[in-house]
Amino acid sequence: MSWTLGPGDLPDLARGAALLGTGGGGDPHIGRLMVEAAMREHGPVTVLDPGEVDDAAFVVPTAMMGAPTVMVEKIPRGDEAVTALRTLEAHLSRSADATMPIECGGINSMIPLVVAARTGLPVIDADGMGRAFPELQMETFGVYGVPGSPMVVSGDHGETVTIDTGTDNRRMEWLARGAAIRMGGAALIAEYAMSGADVKRTAVPRTLSLGLALGRGLREAREQLRDPVSALAEVLAPTGYSHLRVLFAGKVADVERRTVDGFAKGRARFVSFDGTSTLRTEFQNENLIAEVDGAVRCIVPDLICVLEAESGEPITTETLRYGQRVVVVGISTPDIMRTPEALAVFGPACFGLDAEFRPVEEAVPVG
Amino acid sequence: MSWTLGPGDLPDLARGAALLGTGGGGDPHIGRLMVEAAMREHGPVTVLDPGEVDDAAFVVPTAMMGAPTVMVEKIPRGDEAVTALRTLEAHLSRSADATMPIECGGINSMIPLVVAARTGLPVIDADGMGRAFPELQMETFGVYGVPGSPMVVSGDHGETVTIDTGTDNRRMEWLARGAAIRMGGAALIAEYAMSGADVKRTAVPRTLSLGLALGRGLREAREQLRDPVSALAEVLAPTGYSHLRVLFAGKVADVERRTVDGFAKGRARFVSFDGTSTLRTEFQNENLIAEVDGAVRCIVPDLICVLEAESGEPITTETLRYGQRVVVVGISTPDIMRTPEALAVFGPACFGLDAEFRPVEEAVPVG
Repeated sequence: MSWTLGPGDLPDLARGAALLGTGGGGDPHIGRLMVEAAMREHGPVTVLDPGEVDDAAFVVPTAMMGAPTVMVEKIPRGDEAVTALRTLEAHLSRSADATMPIECGGINSMIPLVVAARTGLPVIDADGMGRAFPELQMETFGVYGVPGSPMVVSGDHGETVTIDTGTDNRRMEWLARGAAIRMGGAALIAEYAMSGADVKRTAVPRTLSLGLALGRGLREAREQLRDPVSALAEVLAPTGYSHLRVLFAGKVADVERRTVDGFAKGRARFVSFDGTSTLRTEFQNENLIAEVDGAVRCIVPDLICVLEAESGEPITTETLRYGQRVVVVGISTPDIMRTPEALAVFGPACFGLDAEFRPVEEAVPVG
Repeated sequence: MSWTLGPGDLPDLARGAALLGTGGGGDPHIGRLMVEAAMREHGPVTVLDPGEVDDAAFVVPTAMMGAPTVMVEKIPRGDEAVTALRTLEAHLSRSADATMPIECGGINSMIPLVVAARTGLPVIDADGMGRAFPELQMETFGVYGVPGSPMVVSGDHGETVTIDTGTDNRRMEWLARGAAIRMGGAALIAEYAMSGADVKRTAVPRTLSLGLALGRGLREAREQLRDPVSALAEVLAPTGYSHLRVLFAGKVADVERRTVDGFAKGRARFVSFDGTSTLRTEFQNENLIAEVDGAVRCIVPDLICVLEAESGEPITTETLRYGQRVVVVGISTPDIMRTPEALAVFGPACFGLDAEFRPVEEAVPVG
């Protein structure tokens, strides 16, 4: 069932997608402004449920890549992602029937909407990470056999870089990251071109509508003076992300963050309001691990979301700062993201973490 | 007039092309071995004089790019340059009628011969630098209006990167260098695709045959126990490179060399045999400036060639080492390389040198 996404939906979607971005995926405010500008000029966009995409359809996902610390200062002009899509179409001698997000996040749930508004293509309600991940090989698309390349990286001077690494998605990431760094630290991309049948087989479904529902839940809770975390849990319960656990409540005590190798990498320390307990997180664009008093409570690919304590507003890793009062929640990921094949591509070891994956619902029993 | 270049020509060509490489352009021994291997399998190659190329012909130059310090250790598999050419052909939907060197040098005079042997295409007796330069925008092709992109960078895992920066050849170099660095510091390329008419208008003509003649001259001088420098001067006199000046004779006293940003950068100090005089050179892959006792004697784009004192064998910047006994000569470049447009792209200021270009024949009058 297709539906129309208009400017009025964007504040909710930006907030909910940023939550699914688990600390990364780019600044939600900037993403929203980009889509608003595109919709003002070109009108709303059509969203397709993955179930209704024709098996033979040609789908070209679009996104922004780069360190969020850079993306927040280097705003795209607006047409770079369309250039990436058009260049990939020309390279493959085939016209796209739809675009799709590659990840959830404040910017990367929005870029495909910009492309959809500007080109008139529909956008598919699904993505390839079910959250945000820092690297391009970390896609369920690739986990289940769709090659990421040929892909196109597009910069703000109209330049394009078309990368073909065959089925080697890690090498694709390596070369694309190099191009994005030389384009100033962030760039727009089109990659993982695939059939509608592959979308149904490999994508994490309905994450755009989930982002919208999460954002709406947070807003309504705020309007009704309800607890935002309970509101999130209610929205998530019937979905593939059914378990939400409160990991911690307290204040940001320390943030160490560097923009290095094209990523925002670092760690943060949080102290409970009574000062007796400590949460430590590590991140590479996205939050990777949450340890409370030395015990791992949540780890990739499960979601670690830092929220403003009062409003439930998601806080991205590049905006974490001393003194913020937060509640940190862990959210379980759909089964498609927890298979051995998936963990081999974006499990803890892929980030150099010396810990096994353990589902958040096991690590933190309902207490 | 076309001619055939066979395995027997390669030792002379490797030596002479390395001389024109003015310290860069890659190791002549490795280049020679690569062509020998290709010719053993595929036979000799046809060389076309630029004057006989059809105006409508489609010419795709091929080369290796990277720091010579890396190129000497990371030997190409052999088919990467053909992959680059084929990928560019596919991108432009046009088949090449010939390939051509982009520069003179131990490796880069040879790569197009590898491509020619493997594909059966002829190679054009001309190039785009009339020597070697470290950066891809430093081409007479570009100076006189041929865009370098779209271009293809090809690595040893079969991966390709197709770069399109419109008419911005500096941005092309920046992105291609980034790709080459991520491919391990060296890669094979196809770029500056152009018409036969553009070859006639923008290329430095007959530099392959000049390399061959210079190498032959050096070899014959050695066989006849004649002075190698006089032999070189005789070969050069009737060409566009008509002035040869001896800048210095002495020993290498100090070499400072780093592989940085994808280049071999550094400086060398030479002391005369009687210890009374000092030559200082600076290089970025290629020799850029030669100062004798503080006075500039030769500067880009004129050629600064360090030769083994006894044999006249060219010494590349990555093989310079303490104690080598050398004679250093300066060679004037053809007029097409000394115009204001050319100096704006590869004159002294383009390398951050604080000196004006002065023709070597003026800086060093015949003494």
